[in-house]
Amino acid sequence: MSIRIGILGYGNLGKGIECAIKHNPDMELVAVFTRRNPATVSILTEGVTVYSVEEAVNKKDDIDVLILCGGSATDLPEQTPKYAKLFNVVDSFDTHAKIPEHFDAVDAAAQEGGNVGIISVGWDPGMFSLNRLYANAILTNGSDYTFWGKGVSQGHSDAIRRIDGVLNAKQYTIPVPEALESVRKGENPELTTRQKHTRECFVVAEEGADKARIEQEIKTMPNYFADYDTTVHFISEEELKRDHSGIPHGGFVIRSGKTGWNDENSHIIEYSLKLDSNPEFTASVIVAYARAAYRLSKEGQSGCKTVFDIAPAYLSAQSPAELRKHML
Amino acid sequence: MSIRIGILGYGNLGKGIECAIKHNPDMELVAVFTRRNPATVSILTEGVTVYSVEEAVNKKDDIDVLILCGGSATDLPEQTPKYAKLFNVVDSFDTHAKIPEHFDAVDAAAQEGGNVGIISVGWDPGMFSLNRLYANAILTNGSDYTFWGKGVSQGHSDAIRRIDGVLNAKQYTIPVPEALESVRKGENPELTTRQKHTRECFVVAEEGADKARIEQEIKTMPNYFADYDTTVHFISEEELKRDHSGIPHGGFVIRSGKTGWNDENSHIIEYSLKLDSNPEFTASVIVAYARAAYRLSKEGQSGCKTVFDIAPAYLSAQSPAELRKHML
Repeated sequence: MSIRIGILGYGNLGKGIECAIKHNPDMELVAVFTRRNPATVSILTEGVTVYSVEEAVNKKDDIDVLILCGGSATDLPEQTPKYAKLFNVVDSFDTHAKIPEHFDAVDAAAQEGGNVGIISVGWDPGMFSLNRLYANAILTNGSDYTFWGKGVSQGHSDAIRRIDGVLNAKQYTIPVPEALESVRKGENPELTTRQKHTRECFVVAEEGADKARIEQEIKTMPNYFADYDTTVHFISEEELKRDHSGIPHGGFVIRSGKTGWNDENSHIIEYSLKLDSNPEFTASVIVAYARAAYRLSKEGQSGCKTVFDIAPAYLSAQSPAELRKHML
Repeated sequence: MSIRIGILGYGNLGKGIECAIKHNPDMELVAVFTRRNPATVSILTEGVTVYSVEEAVNKKDDIDVLILCGGSATDLPEQTPKYAKLFNVVDSFDTHAKIPEHFDAVDAAAQEGGNVGIISVGWDPGMFSLNRLYANAILTNGSDYTFWGKGVSQGHSDAIRRIDGVLNAKQYTIPVPEALESVRKGENPELTTRQKHTRECFVVAEEGADKARIEQEIKTMPNYFADYDTTVHFISEEELKRDHSGIPHGGFVIRSGKTGWNDENSHIIEYSLKLDSNPEFTASVIVAYARAAYRLSKEGQSGCKTVFDIAPAYLSAQSPAELRKHML
């Protein structure tokens, strides 16, 4: 019998979940819930109905795991606790600083409902977090480095679009190659924000807009760009669509550490991702953890979990014996 | 209170464990057991006694986790089940094909003793296995690649030393850069043994030995070298000691996979290690899993586990709340 999945929120991430379910034969999409008018939302999977989000509560018995695909700013802090009372849920809450309070809220709700809620699943937080944990537990004496990119930052692209005279924009975050090399060599550099990443912006300006002023506004924007070396390219809407319509991302988690009686030996642990589609990869991680949520719930567990609390074997469709035989 | 660790077997790995304990303040080395005459074994930690291996059973109540540092060929198949009846144990059993039967033997013994036995801990099997599992669970539609090196293969070095006229030797396994690049580009190459790794040998020959014959014997040795492009360098014992006395190793686990409704997006997950000291890194992984064995045992669990069965949080000295706050 398949694991029956519901998707709440059908944007890029929701669609990514739908695609990931197609790649996991032990799972089945049974419903999509939307805040839009369901009649206006067309999905890829044949025979699956799109419902209004208000209907979700009525589908409680038809869904093993409800995947919450809202945003971290306002949607998930409300949605994940709400639905964890009714369903096993997985979300990709990614506001790092607010994870402890989100955990507590989801934990209380999930305990109350007797469900499993897995939060902050994806690649950062998610696979990058796992790699930070493993590497820190192994090399207790060392330094951590996380680099992001090359990839599209939605938040930075949005910030540029809010500038007067800008029609459209895409921003890439790019690790500085020299910094990456120094870390890989075990030189343990202390790196400023500027030394770690550069930002590259592709901007479509209104006809007649003052490009020098726009470029200046971007480069001096506090928090977003002021602390970085930023390059701005003005291009046409056509070029933006043609060359920058993807949502690639990725990055590197590196830990460099010493072992030996007198710290005489150096080691580098590196984990990296190169992703054509940020939302589809994130969705693929979430779907693996949906399997874990289902299994943990079947075992009678409840409450909030993160990737740190879940044994790797729960993620795989293979049995523990198969995994030991083929993957260990 | 510290986690009290015993070491059984004081070779490179046992000494690595001793060093790793020094880097983990929540742990304490309480005894080393050896099959040699204990009087001939001097260790680094002051105030810790070296005992004959026969004494281990008498120290049952003084040790929380016994770490077994024997070899996989003959030591561990006998030792791990034997000691799992008496202690929580961790080993680094690395004969991949025999893991299922080793698991069953250790599981029966550990269940009988009410202990936790964690087997096959290290980097391959170990961290590489974990990364294969995570990457496969995420990218279900893809290909796996494991490359080893650049690093010293003890087995291959030993094989060269058994050749007539050879006094000493060190063999390095080296990934082929072009193969690695092709995999990283997502080209999904089908690679033969020869296309994945080369082998480089540093050989000290007896005076007057027939070097051409030795080189030929190495290059044509079945299983070890015949399927590889092998380079042989003859050097002096002095040069070998000066330039090749380390035990570096490392490698790469890469999964390349597709997502999207029509498999239109490609992703690369890469995990790599660059290790100055293979035994010290392996020991550092083992010590983190010794912490897990201790905690699982305290929770009342028993039986055999592998890295697949253990939630990451068990490895860290930090509390789950600290981990969520600082590492997620």
